[in-house]
Amino acid sequence: MTDRLRPIGVFDSGVGGLTTVRELTRLLPGEDIIYLGDTARVPYGTKSRETIKRYAKQDFEFLKRFDVKLIVAACGTVSSTVEPGELGQGLYTGVIEPAVEAAVRATVSKRIGIIGTSATIRSGSYSSLIKRELPGAVVVEKACPMFVPLVENGYTSRDCLPCVEIAREYLLPLKEAGVDTLILGCTHYPIISDVISMIMGSEVKLISSGGEAGRRAVRLLSENSLLSDKREGGRVTLYCTDSPELFRENARHFLEGLMDADIIGCSIE
Amino acid sequence: MTDRLRPIGVFDSGVGGLTTVRELTRLLPGEDIIYLGDTARVPYGTKSRETIKRYAKQDFEFLKRFDVKLIVAACGTVSSTVEPGELGQGLYTGVIEPAVEAAVRATVSKRIGIIGTSATIRSGSYSSLIKRELPGAVVVEKACPMFVPLVENGYTSRDCLPCVEIAREYLLPLKEAGVDTLILGCTHYPIISDVISMIMGSEVKLISSGGEAGRRAVRLLSENSLLSDKREGGRVTLYCTDSPELFRENARHFLEGLMDADIIGCSIE
Repeated sequence: MTDRLRPIGVFDSGVGGLTTVRELTRLLPGEDIIYLGDTARVPYGTKSRETIKRYAKQDFEFLKRFDVKLIVAACGTVSSTVEPGELGQGLYTGVIEPAVEAAVRATVSKRIGIIGTSATIRSGSYSSLIKRELPGAVVVEKACPMFVPLVENGYTSRDCLPCVEIAREYLLPLKEAGVDTLILGCTHYPIISDVISMIMGSEVKLISSGGEAGRRAVRLLSENSLLSDKREGGRVTLYCTDSPELFRENARHFLEGLMDADIIGCSIE
Repeated sequence: MTDRLRPIGVFDSGVGGLTTVRELTRLLPGEDIIYLGDTARVPYGTKSRETIKRYAKQDFEFLKRFDVKLIVAACGTVSSTVEPGELGQGLYTGVIEPAVEAAVRATVSKRIGIIGTSATIRSGSYSSLIKRELPGAVVVEKACPMFVPLVENGYTSRDCLPCVEIAREYLLPLKEAGVDTLILGCTHYPIISDVISMIMGSEVKLISSGGEAGRRAVRLLSENSLLSDKREGGRVTLYCTDSPELFRENARHFLEGLMDADIIGCSIE
């Protein structure tokens, strides 16, 4: 197989990384994509650095077996707690750098907010990169550990009181700090962007870290002359470490545009 | 070591099973207890039967290495989805039978409610056992998948609006069905028993499955002449598959009375 026709690999702890897959299929409909969701061990965001690193290495090695041309860690927790060099060789992107680049481009007031899992916020990755890229920036961070369970259990709408109440608690300090740009540092969060916007105000720009990672992947492939030259539509295959039925059920909010994808159970330990 | 002095083994996906450990130390202060919380893969309740079974077997085998005289699966999800015979040999109890026995004893109206994780309710274990033990009983079941994240993130008090709102949504159908006894089928739930009682009404009896499993363990040991005859206090050792620091943090609501226990990281895969 020519290098251009090799698939793209994407992984996440669960279903959130499908945000990136959707962006990739939108931008590059001719690419084959192999996705891995480690649903038998989800979530990662509440676990320790050592455990997250061990799991991420197994995810990475699983995708390598498909001779992928690029790997995207479509997971804020992995991207923020594991250095690319710790995972292995090859073309790679996480979500931190693409999201920070977009936020730095979007902000006018130089006041940027970041929300993510406990592990992501504990790592400080987003804020240290923003401060390097945009000296003088004011960064306000907030761990939002309830957002993943809320999304996974369908508490996502603007008239869902528990979701709005918890979002208000997390987001009001960011709003009061006057951020004009907010990084959604976990790939689950775009599903509740309506609620987030309602609280932050429509003038605050929301940066989807998963979507930005998709756009970064396109640029990396282009720069390395690895974009597929196929005319027909690419194939998307979704692997998961727990049962495919459960994956389909939990991923229902994320599968829009991906209904043709095969969903296959696998083991990676 | 004489049989009586061998430790008791208790396991759970995370910290909820400490409910059972607390009950055991209260009733049997002279026993040594080995606890395993599989915090690197918590939660179990959102995962498939096959995955839960594989994890439970590894938990069981880990405890066996300590030559335990009895194993308690202090986890509603494991107890309801895995048959004892599938785990291995030896004296064993889960939480289903003890909780059902207590509920059947407690109910007057023969209307019993059950709440648990998605996997527990999907299994139908509680309801089929109740119908066998108490013919004519009306059983009302409800999966409460948000309760574990709410408890683990400290949303536990009667003045916590999201907790009360979600609890109301889950529990009102049970209240309207007129149950007089409610089984808390997940060992996390006693932490929010105040909120549950407020919604169900103080006249509804709450059965703690973890506590009942502790009492069943005492009876099993007694019947098998395996109660410790030590005078001095037993030692409680808590193993966890993710970091001990994180365990201590997440277990803060459960550690009351167990502050002297050692917390040790381990690997079981």
